[in-house]
Amino acid sequence: MNLIDGNQIATEVLDELSQRISLLKPGKPCVVFVRVGDDPASVSYVKKKERTAQSIGIDARLVVFPTSISESDLLQEIDRLNADDSVHGILVQAPLPSHVNEVSIFNRVNPAKDVDGFHATNLGKLCQEQPDAFRSCTPAGIVELIRRSGIETSGKRVVVLGRSLIVGKPVGMLLLNRSIPGNATVTFCHSRTHNLPSITKEADILIAAIGKPNFVTAQMVKQGCAVIDVGINRIADHSTKSGFRLVGDVDFDEVSPKTSFITPVPGGVGPMTVAMLMSNTVQAYEQIIQTQS
Amino acid sequence: MNLIDGNQIATEVLDELSQRISLLKPGKPCVVFVRVGDDPASVSYVKKKERTAQSIGIDARLVVFPTSISESDLLQEIDRLNADDSVHGILVQAPLPSHVNEVSIFNRVNPAKDVDGFHATNLGKLCQEQPDAFRSCTPAGIVELIRRSGIETSGKRVVVLGRSLIVGKPVGMLLLNRSIPGNATVTFCHSRTHNLPSITKEADILIAAIGKPNFVTAQMVKQGCAVIDVGINRIADHSTKSGFRLVGDVDFDEVSPKTSFITPVPGGVGPMTVAMLMSNTVQAYEQIIQTQS
Repeated sequence: MNLIDGNQIATEVLDELSQRISLLKPGKPCVVFVRVGDDPASVSYVKKKERTAQSIGIDARLVVFPTSISESDLLQEIDRLNADDSVHGILVQAPLPSHVNEVSIFNRVNPAKDVDGFHATNLGKLCQEQPDAFRSCTPAGIVELIRRSGIETSGKRVVVLGRSLIVGKPVGMLLLNRSIPGNATVTFCHSRTHNLPSITKEADILIAAIGKPNFVTAQMVKQGCAVIDVGINRIADHSTKSGFRLVGDVDFDEVSPKTSFITPVPGGVGPMTVAMLMSNTVQAYEQIIQTQS
Repeated sequence: MNLIDGNQIATEVLDELSQRISLLKPGKPCVVFVRVGDDPASVSYVKKKERTAQSIGIDARLVVFPTSISESDLLQEIDRLNADDSVHGILVQAPLPSHVNEVSIFNRVNPAKDVDGFHATNLGKLCQEQPDAFRSCTPAGIVELIRRSGIETSGKRVVVLGRSLIVGKPVGMLLLNRSIPGNATVTFCHSRTHNLPSITKEADILIAAIGKPNFVTAQMVKQGCAVIDVGINRIADHSTKSGFRLVGDVDFDEVSPKTSFITPVPGGVGPMTVAMLMSNTVQAYEQIIQTQS
């Protein structure tokens, strides 16, 4: 079993980006984070993204709105950022208050500044295999982990657990595309799937993104399978100071001995999501500059 | 074995559309077909679409350009149609000359008038399960055949042979979505897939869209499977006047006895593609009118 070190691979990606950014001088990519409300997890995620951006030479700004903001006001604020030439990337941190339609917000961000890759146009361009598509960050991070770990995907069976817009669908599409990594035979499973273990056992690469702690057990995977665990679930643990600990969608202790490669939680996919957001921001800057020249 | 009669189902769809259009009076949807060159198959497809449109009360116009037209000139012509308020739907007939990038052309059509459903934004909205998405016509037609034939998809294994942008990817996404039909466990297979028959044999619903005559044989399907044959392949046949005949991607004679449902070629998916183009045109008109009001 090879443990895939997401922290180390993310550091490699960030080092490469830092060099790429230094070549852009005197210009500098600028990303704006839009946060609505003070949900502690959102505050912490956005802070992490801001710090990472600044550490590699990206200008990061934060805009905060109260949870009472209406959908139409939020759309207007996005329009202002869309029109601001000093802004190259816009990220609206989910989750949003329940009175705001998230997809409407994601689809309002200028596709050229959509560093989150959630806009319909970028999702469609990803399906179209267009090089200027922004790939959403977690799927792009998974593909990068696979690539840098030397895991073969061409002709392999990939099983994706979960059909979310943010992880399941785009990561499956990326691995189906005519690319490296890619060219896999991809199966999407979800809550309605019958006989799930019989399908997951056929996977050469299993991607678990369903948000159920320790859902994937040893009898669900084949010997030698590569496992990418996207889940980040809090479970109660009175032995810790916080009273909880983070576990993935995969029962790591039970499953890992059967695998060829596996990502830990935390320290697997998580750091890659942040690194790929930075990669998308640099891509946005380079593409915008190219269009202007 | 139940033969799915695509001609009859298409007639039902067109009758319903004709009634819906009569309620729009005095307004009338208008679709413009853009043809480049005189490829006989394109001429015949476009003629069929024009006639069908007119038969149900849609205003159909044809614009023809020589194969020598440059990509930039073609893009300009599309911009003119995008800006023309009397036009509600635009369809650029593929294939285009090799010096023109098809995806660039498809992505230039105003997404609100993209009745072909090939624009990145509509492809992305289809993944996002947005109700205003234009679903590309062949995938939408397949879903309609499945629905009107009463074939259950929820929790079923769907295997899609082919990963094209025009059929494979969108039809798989539609059947994966949280909709009726939908909620299927979907596997995408293609030229790089290993041990293809072992995968196709697991399908409750097999969709063949690879363009290889009689590719799917009896030993590749499970007893009771429903088979949708998207292939339209010409093979030499000296017993016919034309010297050829049309066959699908499925060896019909061999496979059909094992199936619960199967579409013939011709007379299966083909007529539905045209019917769903009409459905998209009516949808475009209704959505444009709604936006204006």
